[in-house]
Formats: sequence, C-alpha cells, structure tokens
Amino acid sequence: MKQTQETASSLSSRPRVVIVGAGFGGLRAAQKLGNAPVQVTVIDRTNHHLFQPLLYQVATATLSPGEITAPVRHVLKRQRNTQVIMAEVTGVDTQKKQVLMGDQTIPYDYLILATGARENYFGHEEWRKYAPGLKTIEDARAIRHKLLLAFEAAELETDPERVRELLTFIVVGAGPTGIEMAGAIAEVAHKVLKSEFRNIDPSMARVILLEMAPRVLPVFPEALSHKAKQALVKLGVEVRTNTAVSLIDENGVIAGGERINASTILWTAGVKASPAASWLGVEADRAGRVVVEPDLSVKDLPDVFVIGDTASCVLDGKPVPGLAPAALQQGSYVADLITRRVEGKPAPAPFKYFDKGSMATIGRGSAVALFKGLKLSGPVAWLMWLAVHLVYLIGFANRLLVMMQWARAYLSSRRGVRLITVFAQDGLLKGPKILPSEQEKEKKASAA
Amino acid sequence: MKQTQETASSLSSRPRVVIVGAGFGGLRAAQKLGNAPVQVTVIDRTNHHLFQPLLYQVATATLSPGEITAPVRHVLKRQRNTQVIMAEVTGVDTQKKQVLMGDQTIPYDYLILATGARENYFGHEEWRKYAPGLKTIEDARAIRHKLLLAFEAAELETDPERVRELLTFIVVGAGPTGIEMAGAIAEVAHKVLKSEFRNIDPSMARVILLEMAPRVLPVFPEALSHKAKQALVKLGVEVRTNTAVSLIDENGVIAGGERINASTILWTAGVKASPAASWLGVEADRAGRVVVEPDLSVKDLPDVFVIGDTASCVLDGKPVPGLAPAALQQGSYVADLITRRVEGKPAPAPFKYFDKGSMATIGRGSAVALFKGLKLSGPVAWLMWLAVHLVYLIGFANRLLVMMQWARAYLSSRRGVRLITVFAQDGLLKGPKILPSEQEKEKKASAA
Repeated sequence: MKQTQETASSLSSRPRVVIVGAGFGGLRAAQKLGNAPVQVTVIDRTNHHLFQPLLYQVATATLSPGEITAPVRHVLKRQRNTQVIMAEVTGVDTQKKQVLMGDQTIPYDYLILATGARENYFGHEEWRKYAPGLKTIEDARAIRHKLLLAFEAAELETDPERVRELLTFIVVGAGPTGIEMAGAIAEVAHKVLKSEFRNIDPSMARVILLEMAPRVLPVFPEALSHKAKQALVKLGVEVRTNTAVSLIDENGVIAGGERINASTILWTAGVKASPAASWLGVEADRAGRVVVEPDLSVKDLPDVFVIGDTASCVLDGKPVPGLAPAALQQGSYVADLITRRVEGKPAPAPFKYFDKGSMATIGRGSAVALFKGLKLSGPVAWLMWLAVHLVYLIGFANRLLVMMQWARAYLSSRRGVRLITVFAQDGLLKGPKILPSEQEKEKKASAA
Repeated sequence: MKQTQETASSLSSRPRVVIVGAGFGGLRAAQKLGNAPVQVTVIDRTNHHLFQPLLYQVATATLSPGEITAPVRHVLKRQRNTQVIMAEVTGVDTQKKQVLMGDQTIPYDYLILATGARENYFGHEEWRKYAPGLKTIEDARAIRHKLLLAFEAAELETDPERVRELLTFIVVGAGPTGIEMAGAIAEVAHKVLKSEFRNIDPSMARVILLEMAPRVLPVFPEALSHKAKQALVKLGVEVRTNTAVSLIDENGVIAGGERINASTILWTAGVKASPAASWLGVEADRAGRVVVEPDLSVKDLPDVFVIGDTASCVLDGKPVPGLAPAALQQGSYVADLITRRVEGKPAPAPFKYFDKGSMATIGRGSAVALFKGLKLSGPVAWLMWLAVHLVYLIGFANRLLVMMQWARAYLSSRRGVRLITVFAQDGLLKGPKILPSEQEKEKKASAA
C-alpha cells in the first residue's frame, strides 16, 4: 500500500522466489536477494528467526526467549521486494510450481527449501513424550519448566526414593547440544540453586549423560573429546559412553541394560530433516535429507534448491555438517545463483564449503574448539566460543543485552530467567512437605 | 540439610508464620520477618514474584517475562528461618489453624493472606474467554500473541471486512492499566510495525478505549484525566467515555448500544479479590475483599491478617487503594505486629497508609502523576514514572537491563520482544494472500 502503482506493478512482473524457513540458511538467502530483480516471499511457521546455538541457555534459565530471537518481518522490513508470511507449508506441487499451505497456494519460479531438522527418535516416536528435544523456543521453555519444577516437587516430596528420581536428570546424546545441556544443568543444580531449598540439597542432583558411541563429541578429534569429558566430570556430570538407550518411559530409561529412574530426560541424540523430500517426492538419505546436486538444486528440478539441515550435500566424499555456517554459506550461494540466472549471467561454480570449525561449551568458562586442525580447549576456547556467538548475533540488536546477561550469569552464580509460568496445580507438584514440627522431631528421635 | 541439628530444632520450636502469596505485600512481610524469632513459610502457586506494574510492557512486547520476575526462593534464600513452597492453597481451617493445599495441610500460629485480586467481569464470567485480563505472565504472553497474530492474520486475509476486524483492538476500562495498554498498542500499531507489512498498513489499526465513567482515570483529578485523554488521542486512540459494555462475544462488543467488531479485546475494567474471604468464612465487600480491623487482622481471628488487594481497609472513611505501595506498607506493618506479639512487646498503633501518590503512563514520553495534591503531566511525569519504577525494581537484578531495554525501545522505534511462540497452524491464521500476480493485476485492471 506504501508502494506506488508503478513499483508494485514492476515488482509483480519479476520472477518469484519463494523461501520456506527463516532459519540461518533461508534468512541469509532472503537478505542476499534484497536487491536482486526478483520478488521474494519468505514463509515460516513462526514469526521469528531463532539463534538456535544459544537455545540451551534459554532451556537452562540464563537467557530470555526474546534475547535469541528476532522478528523475521523486522529483519527484512527494508527490502521492498520481500514479503514475509507466517504460515505452515504443507507441500509443494512441482508440476504447477506452487507451494501449498493447506488449501492455499503460492506460485514460485524459484523455490528454496530451508526447513531445518527435528529430533530423530530412530523409530521410537513414543519416546518424544518423555524425552523432549530442543529445537524451538517452546521446547526450551518446556524444558526449563520441567527442570525447575523437578526441584520444586522434590522440596515437597516425602518419599526419599521419589526425591532421588526427581533429582536425576538424563541427557541422551553427547553431541554439542547434549554436552552443553548436561554442563548447564549441572551448574544450575550444583551452583545456582545451592542453599535455596530447605528439605533437599540441590547439589545432590545427578546429571547423567548417555552416549552410544565410545566417546563424547564423537565427530570431534579424540583429544577434544577427552578434554570435554574431563570438563563435564569436573562439573559433576556422570558420563556414560558405549551406552545405548533401549527404552524410555515415564519412570526413566533403560540404558546399557540398566534401569535408571529419572523424572527429567532430554533427547539430543540425533536429528532428521523436515519432510521436504516427501513434499518434492525425491530421494532422501537415511536422516530424511534431500540429496542435492553440486549447485544445491534438486535432481530434475533445476529451480528447486534445498539448503541447511534439510540438504544432504556431499563434497569430495565428505558431508557438509549441519552447522549454522554451512547453512549461511548455502543461503548465500543459492541467492547468488538465482540472481545470476535471472540476470542472464553464467552459472557460478559448484558450491564449496568453507569450514569455519566447530565448538562446544561445557559450563562456565570451559569449551572445546576445532579450527582447521587446531584444537583448543579450556578458557581460551570458551572466550573464542563467546566471541563467535556474539559476532553471529548480529541483527539481533540484543548483542549488548545478551553480553550483559552473560556477564551477570558468569560473575554472580547465574540466576537469570528462572521462570515457571505454569501454576502449581498444573505442574507435577504434589504432597507438601514442610520443616518438621517439634512433635515429628520428637517422634523421630524416640523411634531412633 | 545445611542446618545443624541445633538450628533446625530451635527453628521448629518457634511460632509458625504462614504467608500465602508472594506479591508485593506477602514478600515484604516475609522479608521483614527474616530476623524475627519465628519460622516463616511462604506459599505461592508460581515460583516467582511479579512486578505487576510493568506487566503491560510484556503484553506489548517491550520487556521479556524474565525481566519483571524474580524467583521467590532466590529473593529469600538468605533467610534461614524461611521456607518457600510452590503450591496451590485451597482453603484455611481456622479452628485447627491449618492452611489447606488439596489433601495436605500446613499448621500456622499466624497467617498472612496476601493473595491479590483477579479480573472482575461483574457476573459475566463468559466474557473472560473473549476478553482476557492482565494479571499473570501467562496473561501477558497470551495477549502479546493475540496482538501480534492479529497483524499476521490481517496480512494474509483477503476479505476487507475481516481485515478491519483483525485490526480493531478494544480495551475495556480506562484505569491506569487500560490507558497504558491502549497507549502501548497504538504505539505498536502506528510506529513499531510501520512498513513491515506489504498487504496491510498497520497504522490504519483502530485502538478503542471504552470507559463507563464520564472520563478516563476516574479516580484521578479531572485535570489529569483531561491530560491523559489528550495524550491518548494524540497517539491515535479512540477514547469513548460514558460507554458501558453490554455484551462481549467472539465477534466483538456491544458498547453504548453500538456493535463494534474486533478480534482482540482486553479487559481491564475491574478486579475482585481472590477467594480469601470464603476460605475464612468471613464478611467480604462487594469486590470480594475481606473487611479488616484497624490492625489488619480479621474480626474474631486475631492471628489471621489480610493485606494488599485482598483486604478492604477503610481509614478515616477512605479506602486504602489497591496499589503496590499500600500492599508493601501493610506487609511491613503486619510483620512488625507479629514480631512484637511474639516478643511480648505492646501492639503497634493501628495501620496508617502513607499516600505515595499514583501515576500512569501513556505511551512513549508521556504520563500523569499525582503526589500529595501535586498534579504532573507530560514528559516530567513520565520521567518521574520511569524513576519510581526503576527504584522499585530493586531486588530484580534486572534494573540495569530493564533500563537498557527501555532506552532501546524509546530511542529506536521499539521492537524488543515480538515473539509469537505458537505455530502458524495453531494460531488464527488462515488463507494466505500474497503480492498480486501479473495476471490478477491485469484481471483487476480490465475489470475496472
């Protein structure tokens, strides 16, 4: 409505690029197409871009959801050729070149699918109920509630067996997210909540990290796995490698043949791609990812591109990892390719992945980082982790705020965002237990 | 468990003070009892103290929930005589002197009820569904979702009548919360979201403030009501006084005999006390408040005290207002009274309310304030409002962060926490509408 008739008309005659998903890959592609002679439509089922690498800090009460999200609309508001739609994509008609949203459709000339990945329960979808994953703000908030309510419930519980269960936290999967979660939960239990309870001692909480592979961070070099494990053990995490989970139910898990009762179980053991492959009716790899061509397009669908965690992209026999830098690079590449094609320029060379390294943090002041064969660990790696994440928070306008939250969290035994927004009666609380009365004291004393 | 056996034993022989509700009054009472020779139990159905005066800023996406809440447990952690319980109180047995929580009980020697108030729909409880109030973090989050989703849905809507409904926001009740909400919604629509949409113009949104009384802020002096109305009109709010609401349904309201269709309706028209009076089986005033004695105790129950919004306290013929300073003063008073009684000292003089004035803000940079007959309005009142709220955020550790959020919000057309955490398919979104295609353009042109 702000556009003049001329602009609107010249816009609508341009080729349409539809981008599904406003994660790292999709948003970067949209930004790079801001000045291209195309009209862009970005569709996401939420209204925000999420800085997923810090999601575990929302789940463990250090950061607020608003600090790691940015409204997609706001990020792209200055791009007059771009429209943002909050809607759920249900399929793609590659014949008619339309994206389906329920009974509505949007036509495309070029389609970029950047719909990410979700938890992979490897055929045990029923485990999701007991062991949620960490992919969305709602996931993080639910985990925060579960975590904090476990301590509240333990404070009220009279059965010591049940207290033990409530204070047992299991993280399944020792990839970067798993070790970050395990480290952060141990810090919350052993440091943050210390001396805030009267009936329980939060530092007695058990945090158990289960990993099927022989070591934590299986995709990192062995030396860094070793450092990471040391840091976890120092924080009080029980690390169990070579331990497969064979069952998860409301009482806990069976892991390596042993039953472990626990009220809180988190799943970070694997991801599978969103259903883009089935939308397109094309080949997917074992993790559900669309196998892409060297230019990130889909075989026999040269106008459809798949990027980020949704794509299976193998270069020189090595898969491009499911990391933010890879998605960003792929988003840039596809935007450039489409711009060239629309402008009648020659196609770019096949996509190349520039490995910016990988890192994971383990609690306050410790991390491991791998960069071009260089292995770093301890405080140096942690400072690097901090710097990289702050740099990548560009466009969030929250960078300074997040930095201050971190400073506060790391200087004072962090307290941050310990917010439970379900009420007591809706949670898992039952049976209050209070300071023992004088009579109860006497009864116990005489019984002893 | 941290206490030595001696301490625990000496603690449990002390008189028990049970405080229900960790709002301004309850928390203040607990803090004042921290060094008294009593054992204190604070029961709240949430785990956090909420800084309610800023709740409207969470509802309108300026602040994060974590920035206006503090874990009760954390606030009171250093008081070794105090236990915090997250549980839902269901009644009081004044004969046995027990607080009931489902089938559990907690004995008390002294009881302080500080359970606050909730929305009063004046017999039309069915309106709650369509016109939520603003009392909890969940309320604020729900309103934020509703507000932001209305714009998202309007962007996708093709029926102009429905677009109009989606972009009509009604606030019922022009007390401080009502004018703060109306002003903030107008700012979001007319400034923050400006130029972020392609099909709709958010600045065309209507914000309608309905008030039954002849003027906004009916309890303020007439001159300030006038200033407040001017400020609201300047922000683009339609102010309708002398307008009673006779019906609220899914389509909108009937107000002053006129039907106004609107998808978003907020209720700030009145409060009624929590059910403390019925727990105690005592007299309540029309708003459900317990009528208290000059020492804030309940008639014939000298060990039970009611404070804050739950109490009807009339001094020299004037009711003590339902404001945070009043609750804080009552909390201090009762704590002092109980301490004296336990220590065998004479009872204090009857409760006296020190009027610290009242204020309300209307959008960015404008407010009205009343202090000891002094009437302030405009930027001066707003700066005063800002200063007072920052001072009262003590104990939140978030003061600096909140100040920075405000600074950012007020310097750059505020964007803050525009987070919708329900997915598109769960929200009210339907029917996508996109930039018109070339053919549609031509069709329209030839039809014209």
